[in-house]
Amino acid sequence: MMRPTVEVLRILVPEIRFVEAPCGREAEAEYGTPFPDVTRAAIDAADCTLFGASGGPSRPILWYLRWNKETYINVRPVRWIPGYRSPMRDPERIDYVIARDNLEGMYPPREGDVAELAALASSSSWWMAPPVGKVGAYSVKVTTDEQMQRVAAYACKLAQQRQAAGYPGRVTLGAKYSIQPRTDGRFRSIVKAAVSQHPELSYQEFLVDDMARRLVASPETLDVLVLGNEHGDILADVSSGTIGGLGLSPSACYGDNYAYFEPVHGSAPDLAGKGIINPTAMLLSGALMLDYLGYNEQARTLEAAIQQTYQAGTLLPVDQGGQAGTSEFVQAIKTRLLYGK
Amino acid sequence: MMRPTVEVLRILVPEIRFVEAPCGREAEAEYGTPFPDVTRAAIDAADCTLFGASGGPSRPILWYLRWNKETYINVRPVRWIPGYRSPMRDPERIDYVIARDNLEGMYPPREGDVAELAALASSSSWWMAPPVGKVGAYSVKVTTDEQMQRVAAYACKLAQQRQAAGYPGRVTLGAKYSIQPRTDGRFRSIVKAAVSQHPELSYQEFLVDDMARRLVASPETLDVLVLGNEHGDILADVSSGTIGGLGLSPSACYGDNYAYFEPVHGSAPDLAGKGIINPTAMLLSGALMLDYLGYNEQARTLEAAIQQTYQAGTLLPVDQGGQAGTSEFVQAIKTRLLYGK
Repeated sequence: MMRPTVEVLRILVPEIRFVEAPCGREAEAEYGTPFPDVTRAAIDAADCTLFGASGGPSRPILWYLRWNKETYINVRPVRWIPGYRSPMRDPERIDYVIARDNLEGMYPPREGDVAELAALASSSSWWMAPPVGKVGAYSVKVTTDEQMQRVAAYACKLAQQRQAAGYPGRVTLGAKYSIQPRTDGRFRSIVKAAVSQHPELSYQEFLVDDMARRLVASPETLDVLVLGNEHGDILADVSSGTIGGLGLSPSACYGDNYAYFEPVHGSAPDLAGKGIINPTAMLLSGALMLDYLGYNEQARTLEAAIQQTYQAGTLLPVDQGGQAGTSEFVQAIKTRLLYGK
Repeated sequence: MMRPTVEVLRILVPEIRFVEAPCGREAEAEYGTPFPDVTRAAIDAADCTLFGASGGPSRPILWYLRWNKETYINVRPVRWIPGYRSPMRDPERIDYVIARDNLEGMYPPREGDVAELAALASSSSWWMAPPVGKVGAYSVKVTTDEQMQRVAAYACKLAQQRQAAGYPGRVTLGAKYSIQPRTDGRFRSIVKAAVSQHPELSYQEFLVDDMARRLVASPETLDVLVLGNEHGDILADVSSGTIGGLGLSPSACYGDNYAYFEPVHGSAPDLAGKGIINPTAMLLSGALMLDYLGYNEQARTLEAAIQQTYQAGTLLPVDQGGQAGTSEFVQAIKTRLLYGK
């Protein structure tokens, strides 16, 4: 999936220099670690990283890209185009973008024994004491003002960019502010305040459960959706489901000094080598990378070639109801790029 | 919505004695508190509680029903029937039940200042230290073996009951076990072990984000879905969205010594008094209550009357694309119950 994507990107922008860095199981076989120093050095030396689907063994690399590189925002465009096999009755209503906290909340894990919780100063004020006498565990969700503020600011920037392209300029917050005032409630206040600084933008908010329902019931009311880390993780997969699957869902993670791009789906080892993987999510992630590097025109050209291939409908990937293998599908896109048809 | 539901239940089982207890804003006006002693006494004296949609002011009552009465499992049947206005292309695939932890996880809230986290014994072993020097907050998720075991046992019981009625007897876990081994990972082990004790049942598991996507992509693969508290809160709303809305989604919460029944939706004060509320979720919650009280035949009669009314399609609630007000819709159901047509 990665190889044909790089081939396509090279057609569009020959001057990009790709450095292939070993990772995951392959790296483990050669270097004895899934994340060798040479890979870290390659990441550090690059302008950004195009990351293949990640499974368990490549997790340390993903964590490095995320937390060490402080890529604080995960952006996931959600848009149905004709040819995508959606399970929805009216999928043409789906065209929005999710801006998700990429650093805090429930990830990375901070777990321990439930008995430890008595040491927390606030625990005596909780409506219900922690069950410290029982066998159990805890997991901590963390939110800082600093991170929520930059997530909010990025969501506003996205809404402005989209507004310039004809979208309504609406930021919608989804969080559990009713039950968690100090974390999700604070997030709500920060996002609301950030949006109010831009009179051209509008703000709406829903409890995250209701927000999740609206992805299915009324996606046409969404423009830029801003969510916490785990909430975004869950809701973005619902969104993928509505347009027709994970194979269609690109993603970009941005920090102040770095960015990485990856499809939303996992590595699906059961499908490896069969030649039927849908590379659309990877290709669209590549288009987001071209945008990041300043090749906006080429990014639009790539998106258009993908869209035209789906619209033509003669060479669709297997998961979209077609019969085209990965290479046939990619060849169709290359042909469009090279010969304009 | 509550009043016509009680009228319908009285037609079916005249011997049920209903005690109306004041709550929320009305109670506040008369007693100076949204949860007066008289209401608590009425709840305690009853076999179970039929709870109207809850808004903010009635929350203390909901918390009493949940945590003081230890109603540990929230059961939400999710089933499309002809006449429901679903946004899905093939809604007839949707027929499963969600069993959700009703007591632990992220609710009730346990929040505090992020600086407190240094006091947790495990914090020194975390991959990433808590950002104690920053302005921020935490929220604690709690899981105990005791609660996870009874949730797992209840899910198995549900799967057995459904299997007896022709369903596959499949328990599906959704959790973030990949990232949270001590809480969600432990939940996974406990559910898996519980199901394995019943050779007639089968088990499957998905990460909760993938599980959320499957509610949209492949609901036909689900029978009994078991989820943590917040995950279930979010995913059940997605499920509601797939069948056609919150107005159609009943719910029951069971403990060893108590139970309460409520529609999934909130109190929607903007709709109060307009006479257009869809009482289906409340009526179906009433059917679950009849089952709990042992009036199974009457519960099936009520469900059949609701189903026939939707199938007839002449008197549908406004949110389902019809023109019937609440009273007209309820009258149609009463007529079926009283005259069998």
